[in-house]
Amino acid sequence: MLDKIPTVGIVGGKGRMGKWFERFLKEDVGLNVLICDLNTEVKLDDIVKNCEVVIVSVPMEAFESVIKELGPKMRQEAFLTDLCSLKSVQVDTMLRYTQDSQCEVVGTHPLFGPAEDSIQGRRVAICPARGRRWLFWWEGILKSKGALTYVVDAKEHDRTMAWVQALNHFILLSLGKALEEDGIDLNQLLNLATPSFERQLRIVSRLSLQDPELYATIQMSNPFAQNALKIFTSHANQLFQIIKNQDRAKFIDLFKEVQELGRLFIEKSKK
Amino acid sequence: MLDKIPTVGIVGGKGRMGKWFERFLKEDVGLNVLICDLNTEVKLDDIVKNCEVVIVSVPMEAFESVIKELGPKMRQEAFLTDLCSLKSVQVDTMLRYTQDSQCEVVGTHPLFGPAEDSIQGRRVAICPARGRRWLFWWEGILKSKGALTYVVDAKEHDRTMAWVQALNHFILLSLGKALEEDGIDLNQLLNLATPSFERQLRIVSRLSLQDPELYATIQMSNPFAQNALKIFTSHANQLFQIIKNQDRAKFIDLFKEVQELGRLFIEKSKK
Repeated sequence: MLDKIPTVGIVGGKGRMGKWFERFLKEDVGLNVLICDLNTEVKLDDIVKNCEVVIVSVPMEAFESVIKELGPKMRQEAFLTDLCSLKSVQVDTMLRYTQDSQCEVVGTHPLFGPAEDSIQGRRVAICPARGRRWLFWWEGILKSKGALTYVVDAKEHDRTMAWVQALNHFILLSLGKALEEDGIDLNQLLNLATPSFERQLRIVSRLSLQDPELYATIQMSNPFAQNALKIFTSHANQLFQIIKNQDRAKFIDLFKEVQELGRLFIEKSKK
Repeated sequence: MLDKIPTVGIVGGKGRMGKWFERFLKEDVGLNVLICDLNTEVKLDDIVKNCEVVIVSVPMEAFESVIKELGPKMRQEAFLTDLCSLKSVQVDTMLRYTQDSQCEVVGTHPLFGPAEDSIQGRRVAICPARGRRWLFWWEGILKSKGALTYVVDAKEHDRTMAWVQALNHFILLSLGKALEEDGIDLNQLLNLATPSFERQLRIVSRLSLQDPELYATIQMSNPFAQNALKIFTSHANQLFQIIKNQDRAKFIDLFKEVQELGRLFIEKSKK
């Protein structure tokens, strides 16, 4: 399998993440890369014929129809992976449409967007599905360029993304909308920002680099998202009540609990 | 007034911020500093007698009683300022109890905590109250050591702090409590964190360095805080409804509005 440099095909290679991985695999890793997209001369059949590795980087809405066409054509010795932000349904879809070909399948989620310069220090989730040989090759390539890979079950991945992505974006959007509604002077806000709030505003600002369609799907298609949002809004509403009631003792207890969690994060981050 | 190096007295100089300013004014600025606190031999009377500049750095709960005792003793040519996180009531309190002495009064809010190494690049709000001569001296000292000072009306300051402090802490606490209730595996959360969520967790973690009593007062004594919390929770509840209804178009409109705000922040931060 690895007696020659494999050729990688990127389906959806004209999108922002597709382009990002094209550059990465060509320039940083030194692989041959073939691109196919809606209007390229290279078609799915060319990809299947010429590539040992096929990476599908298409909007999640188009994912099933692409895999439905691609999956049955895959060669048995080839490797199929994707770059979707959700993994449970996506890995199932890839497995289902490759039941005849029995090619290797792995789910990949790069935990960063196309605005990042390099993969160095960036996290990538890897969800094993069928086969292990290409999985080790793929993980090895990512790691060799400094990615922090983490192998995780697809369902567990989605459950975690409900917090990492869905709830995090939810908070940033609610904060952004609230600032907008209040109409507070932004210059004054920036000139009076604490280090903590300044960091928070920078995270909100990063949203301007992201794709609204992807962010909608992250909220609406992750089956675990609503649970996370529900727990958060319920705690926010409770805390608001505590503050309205001027219940200082309860507030301080709650503050100390979160401080304990903060200390755990600091400890674990050091490892 | 400035023909000799002034001696600065810090009332509450044994607290964390008091100690921070003692070190800063002694070591970085080169002033003489006298400390008084509950159990020091130096008393308020010694401070008033020996210091041209008096900085009050006590918990906001104790502030009025300290000013009530200190204010009438202040000398007319002296300078009184404080380090409270709220300014409207505090500046009024300082003015009220110095009506006889008519000393100079300025409200100061260092927009950072005692965990910061230096004042370089840190913001300090300055609220003019009575007199301008010491104000210029004070602002000059802070600026000369790299502080980003911002002169602002005390009420405007508090209105802005409802967002910068009260709402920001509120969000971090609600997020912390939600993660705690869910009991999600923290290692997995850290290993699957996006750059955005990792930043968010670091902000939550910073709470472990802070004083719960101060944070309670910031929530409960800022008259503008509840308005900010109300606007935020109302937007969070609305957004949750949009997501539950799978209203993709509405979500995307909202996302784009926040992106616009994000772009404004980036633009203004560059200036």
